[in-house]
Amino acid sequence: MSQPQYFVFPSSTLTDYSTQVFMHFGVSEKDARQAADVLSKADLRGIDSHGVARLRTYVDMFKIGRINPKPNVRIIREKKSVATVDGDRGLGLVVGPKANEIAMDKAAQYGSGWVSVSNTNHYGIASYYSLKALERDMIGWSMTNSSKIVVPLWGAERRLGTNPIAIAFPGFKNPPIVIDLATSVVAFGKVEIAERQGKKIPEGWIVDQNGNNSTLPADVYSGGLLPLGGTRESGGHKGYCLSAMVDILCCVLSGANWGPFAPPFAIFEDAPKESVGKGIGHFFGAMEIDGFEDIDVFKKRVDHWIDVFRSTKPIPGRDAVLIPGDPEHEAEKIRTKDGIPVIEAVVNDLKQISKETGISFNI
Amino acid sequence: MSQPQYFVFPSSTLTDYSTQVFMHFGVSEKDARQAADVLSKADLRGIDSHGVARLRTYVDMFKIGRINPKPNVRIIREKKSVATVDGDRGLGLVVGPKANEIAMDKAAQYGSGWVSVSNTNHYGIASYYSLKALERDMIGWSMTNSSKIVVPLWGAERRLGTNPIAIAFPGFKNPPIVIDLATSVVAFGKVEIAERQGKKIPEGWIVDQNGNNSTLPADVYSGGLLPLGGTRESGGHKGYCLSAMVDILCCVLSGANWGPFAPPFAIFEDAPKESVGKGIGHFFGAMEIDGFEDIDVFKKRVDHWIDVFRSTKPIPGRDAVLIPGDPEHEAEKIRTKDGIPVIEAVVNDLKQISKETGISFNI
Repeated sequence: MSQPQYFVFPSSTLTDYSTQVFMHFGVSEKDARQAADVLSKADLRGIDSHGVARLRTYVDMFKIGRINPKPNVRIIREKKSVATVDGDRGLGLVVGPKANEIAMDKAAQYGSGWVSVSNTNHYGIASYYSLKALERDMIGWSMTNSSKIVVPLWGAERRLGTNPIAIAFPGFKNPPIVIDLATSVVAFGKVEIAERQGKKIPEGWIVDQNGNNSTLPADVYSGGLLPLGGTRESGGHKGYCLSAMVDILCCVLSGANWGPFAPPFAIFEDAPKESVGKGIGHFFGAMEIDGFEDIDVFKKRVDHWIDVFRSTKPIPGRDAVLIPGDPEHEAEKIRTKDGIPVIEAVVNDLKQISKETGISFNI
Repeated sequence: MSQPQYFVFPSSTLTDYSTQVFMHFGVSEKDARQAADVLSKADLRGIDSHGVARLRTYVDMFKIGRINPKPNVRIIREKKSVATVDGDRGLGLVVGPKANEIAMDKAAQYGSGWVSVSNTNHYGIASYYSLKALERDMIGWSMTNSSKIVVPLWGAERRLGTNPIAIAFPGFKNPPIVIDLATSVVAFGKVEIAERQGKKIPEGWIVDQNGNNSTLPADVYSGGLLPLGGTRESGGHKGYCLSAMVDILCCVLSGANWGPFAPPFAIFEDAPKESVGKGIGHFFGAMEIDGFEDIDVFKKRVDHWIDVFRSTKPIPGRDAVLIPGDPEHEAEKIRTKDGIPVIEAVVNDLKQISKETGISFNI
């Protein structure tokens, strides 16, 4: 297998391009810039799967009218610190930030804010929202469901998405602790990579169509990913529980499509025949640090926590214990300076979008 | 190895006995009854490790003055929906319910309530608190730290407790979904059982004192448990992240002892030489369902969720996919009717406590 070729772009080039593409489909400049910022953050933080590589799918969704470019994102029910928000079929990249803003505004007023969101779609990286809360000295939570790819423990059918959980805590001198984890055992992409490389995968990643454990990557297409923990013996019931928690907070609470009913993001995937709600769902939380403790005291304690964990004696073959968010923080430092490497296949997508929309994209 | 002998008691007998034991050490009748209720719930729900079997340790802690029988559990800082609570070295079984009550009262007033607690100790089963929230039509969250037994991913030293996360959602006709999971890959008790049986354990459960993966149970004593997910390949970084999240919400936020500084529950374990706060920490959250959706509409949706997940095609060798909380719900039904089986070793502990306190315990 040959190495993929990369082209490197300044982050701003990609952000500007995405902004214009969103505007082409009727999104306001403000919302388009917001949406592009979410994609950009993923690219900067090295989460390539969730950055500009996703623009193709958003464009496809706009083309078939699945996304409302001018949504009226609104609170449909609330009680002081909590609310349910209807995303009006807007871009997840626009609905997510608005709903997160509602949670943070509530936190500023009531000490905390909690928002369950329906009628939305793919919202980018979960940690984008937790990072936003840090800017306001808040602890921010973020969750979303997604279309089915994970089996519940002991199940032979996909029922859940990769349903991530994110939360972040600010340091004083240290960079923040940024937690962002899918509740599946691994990303689907890792299974795909193993397949392309003709490699077997470890037991405990996937089951085949009958629910048997498999080490053959291709079996995932008719089977599914296991939840975090893998098999029962290694805690797969716990990952199933966490994924269920995300599903219920995001969807059952808001009236979105939960579990196997979540509509897929990619248009080439079959949509579930039955619908039990509106779009997919998100869940955001924000807590004012100042409501619990002096902000600087808390941040200095987080610094201490980081220093102690970083000084843990490492296992053989590793230099150090990492702090959650370390790899992404490192990527962001490098990519802010050196630019975003984009693989050829994605560059070709961007060029194709340029042809379709008339928006210039020069490399 | 011979089978352990069981003695069966009505739940009320054990609850009354625990109540009197707590009162013997100066706890008020109301608080003693509350504390006994937490232990009782664990026994009823089949979580034997957290029930009356723990009474011995609480007694030991009282004897050495580690627990304040008449704590002034108080809010030391708050802002509407959030608060920090100082447990005043009270029994975790008393401090926990009081702090959880504060969270629920805040939820009744502000839609949600979030309380981080310091200066406390072992609070029983995490799900006790989430179950309490159901009684008020709330979604209840509960977390606690505990003394170090888990290594952070890539670490060769214990730094974290088993740090559980609990949350529960009410059904309409169905029993509630009750999630309660330790963020370690398995319970320490499972490793101990394998050791007693002379069996090897699966790779991915523990590391030895140098941080190498081990399948020999005895290595855990100088090494530690891995976080949920096990090794890096199977998602151990995710379990580490979840455990860190619990640690920070419970302790760094409240001013309790986080990570490796958490004082042990059992008096025979060495306490950390350094202290960075007061006691251990808990974190409670409560959200009013009514703030998001009509209560019955939500409960019926939860019923639907349960029915769909229960109907998932099972893997070979299993009858059905379980719903989180199923095993505990089943145990509670049986034990409420038939009584609590208590192993001989624990019965002997209870008899010994009877000798020490003069409180009668007849079997």
